[in-house]
Amino acid sequence: MNLQQLMRTLHTTNKSKIVLLVSDGLGGLPIEPGGGTELETASTPNLDKLAAENVCGLSIPLLPGITPGSGPGHLGLFGYDPLEVTIGRGVLEALGIDLELGPTDVAARGNFCTVNEQGELTDRRAGRIPTEVCARLVGMLRAIRIPGVDLVIEPVREYRFAAVFRGQELYGEVEDTDPQVTGVPALEPKARDAASEKTAQVAAEFIRQARRILNNEKPANMLMLRGFARRPPIPSMKELYGLNAAAIAVYPMYRGLARLVGMTVLPQAKNLAEEIEALRQNWDSFDFFFFHFKYTDSTGEDGNFPEKVKRIEELDRHIPQILELKPDVLIVTGDHSTPCLLKSHSWHPVPVLLAARTCRPDRVTSFGERECLYGGLGQVEAKYLLPLALGHAGRLQKFGA
Amino acid sequence: MNLQQLMRTLHTTNKSKIVLLVSDGLGGLPIEPGGGTELETASTPNLDKLAAENVCGLSIPLLPGITPGSGPGHLGLFGYDPLEVTIGRGVLEALGIDLELGPTDVAARGNFCTVNEQGELTDRRAGRIPTEVCARLVGMLRAIRIPGVDLVIEPVREYRFAAVFRGQELYGEVEDTDPQVTGVPALEPKARDAASEKTAQVAAEFIRQARRILNNEKPANMLMLRGFARRPPIPSMKELYGLNAAAIAVYPMYRGLARLVGMTVLPQAKNLAEEIEALRQNWDSFDFFFFHFKYTDSTGEDGNFPEKVKRIEELDRHIPQILELKPDVLIVTGDHSTPCLLKSHSWHPVPVLLAARTCRPDRVTSFGERECLYGGLGQVEAKYLLPLALGHAGRLQKFGA
Repeated sequence: MNLQQLMRTLHTTNKSKIVLLVSDGLGGLPIEPGGGTELETASTPNLDKLAAENVCGLSIPLLPGITPGSGPGHLGLFGYDPLEVTIGRGVLEALGIDLELGPTDVAARGNFCTVNEQGELTDRRAGRIPTEVCARLVGMLRAIRIPGVDLVIEPVREYRFAAVFRGQELYGEVEDTDPQVTGVPALEPKARDAASEKTAQVAAEFIRQARRILNNEKPANMLMLRGFARRPPIPSMKELYGLNAAAIAVYPMYRGLARLVGMTVLPQAKNLAEEIEALRQNWDSFDFFFFHFKYTDSTGEDGNFPEKVKRIEELDRHIPQILELKPDVLIVTGDHSTPCLLKSHSWHPVPVLLAARTCRPDRVTSFGERECLYGGLGQVEAKYLLPLALGHAGRLQKFGA
Repeated sequence: MNLQQLMRTLHTTNKSKIVLLVSDGLGGLPIEPGGGTELETASTPNLDKLAAENVCGLSIPLLPGITPGSGPGHLGLFGYDPLEVTIGRGVLEALGIDLELGPTDVAARGNFCTVNEQGELTDRRAGRIPTEVCARLVGMLRAIRIPGVDLVIEPVREYRFAAVFRGQELYGEVEDTDPQVTGVPALEPKARDAASEKTAQVAAEFIRQARRILNNEKPANMLMLRGFARRPPIPSMKELYGLNAAAIAVYPMYRGLARLVGMTVLPQAKNLAEEIEALRQNWDSFDFFFFHFKYTDSTGEDGNFPEKVKRIEELDRHIPQILELKPDVLIVTGDHSTPCLLKSHSWHPVPVLLAARTCRPDRVTSFGERECLYGGLGQVEAKYLLPLALGHAGRLQKFGA
């Protein structure tokens, strides 16, 4: 019996409320030898108090040494095995701009590019055209008509756009048309299996019409499609855990990931204050809240240590407002580390604290990487945090008699 | 997606250098209640400094409570699942004397033995004849001719020798001919599957000719064959990790294990100084160095606590010479524990330290079993140390977007 089967079998319902507060990229490293990490450096009286009174540990996003992208990082926190569920690049691109994806839609990532008179690629990114030009070109592409297929095309950023093909019998096993080099023509979309033949034909027709439409544009006179995929067929949090789950996030990517696991996505909040307000207003309507805070990741990616420290302090100041709502279980962690030292996601385990009436005390007195090493949760794979939350919420029956 | 698939997919290359220093049987136990372990007793200023400045933990060779032999112990450290890869005894015996094994060779371990006039075994080890006698008898056995099969026979020690059968269509699923008791004749080699019928026939013919050759010898007038096996079909470290790996070891068994995973085996060094010299001379030609130190195991097997302490101190004195080369990642650990108290390998987790620029500090201040319990690596299965090394070396891309 695996984790998902256990969850499906054992979950029960009650009136408890669970908050999963994901501070993206929370974990860090000292920026200089002998120093503290971003979290250790920040003044976090509220998180420290929670850590001292409850239970802490470190969350391993995937496996030791393996760095996750945002998709696998969040799937783990939602209790899914992030090594078993693959999210195609086209799907992530569509989620990243808040596009709704049905279970049979095929999404692809589009790139505008430049070709010469022989049709050979001269620039795979069309000189990184501005987003406004991308939006105008996407508007022109909306004239494309393919019988039996609804097309959704939206600009993303610079030369990138998202395309969704909606129709009967469309599958995602189609090769990229980007040859990854210049000096050759773009490739034809080729199906990797028989079921995806129709998608390949639809994509080919899309490209043929697009070529005509873009013919006189400069420099973006052609396009390529990559990462064809359906959304992964995963059971919802309702099915697995019996949870009515809601997602609160400023950035569309995270709302999209929440949508993949069947959460209700609350309207976009613009900042932490609005996110707290959304939590408060929807408190009675859901059992579980995924609450996403982006800026600990983006400041880490920028390598801006003082700014990441400030963002952690900003989050800490908002903790009392979450506690006022009296969640039965509050988890604070990140989907991965984003140390300023590395300016990128990393594999380092992420501090986690779990607050509930049923915590067994440990000797942690503040919330930080070194302290959490001595926490009662130990070093735990991220996918076990949700089962722990359900346990502490009284939402899991015992296994076996 | 399992660990090997991940490694295959995610690895990338750069100019980083990784050193895996395996102090065989490093972990220990106090020899008397209240005392320190061998490592805790040894004076190890260089390892202590590394431990204090980097990250430590304990490596679980297989699973809690399970003691590994040298084969699985090292396969784990090389990143393979030691419970999934089986190395036949014949293969280990051949590797242990530096024999080269092709992927289709079948190796077996040979024992000289004594039989009476009725052909019944009276001594399964032929009175443990001296190695010189073994060598003389093996010389005589080289007269054996089997059409279509090349034979390689080499003495090992006392009554033991190694036999390699090289030819078309030879497979290793053949039963031992040692009945494990005396008073009965040796068994016929019997194939366990159809593909191995030919090997069984070749082995039977080998035994028939050997019986004639040994007929007038005393006490070794017969032989038995055990542990028929091909080398396990495992992907190389180059395939899995993109590493050009080299092995430096005094003892042939460890060079052989390194050969199994595709490492380049550097010429035999006779002591630690020569091993260091080999490391230095080959520094520019490889990405990864497996550096084996044997004597912490052999002194443990002897139950010689003071001598194991001395060997650890000897290793410690050589650490600065390794650091002078400025490895990007240095791991120091063992393949298993060999406590003098037990005079044998044991299941106890092995202290591990990982030194790299990207280590997250922990509170460990010296390198020893008790200190490592509080290390940032936690207690980690040995097979994850190589992924961690690759992560710290910047040789793994992130998983998913």
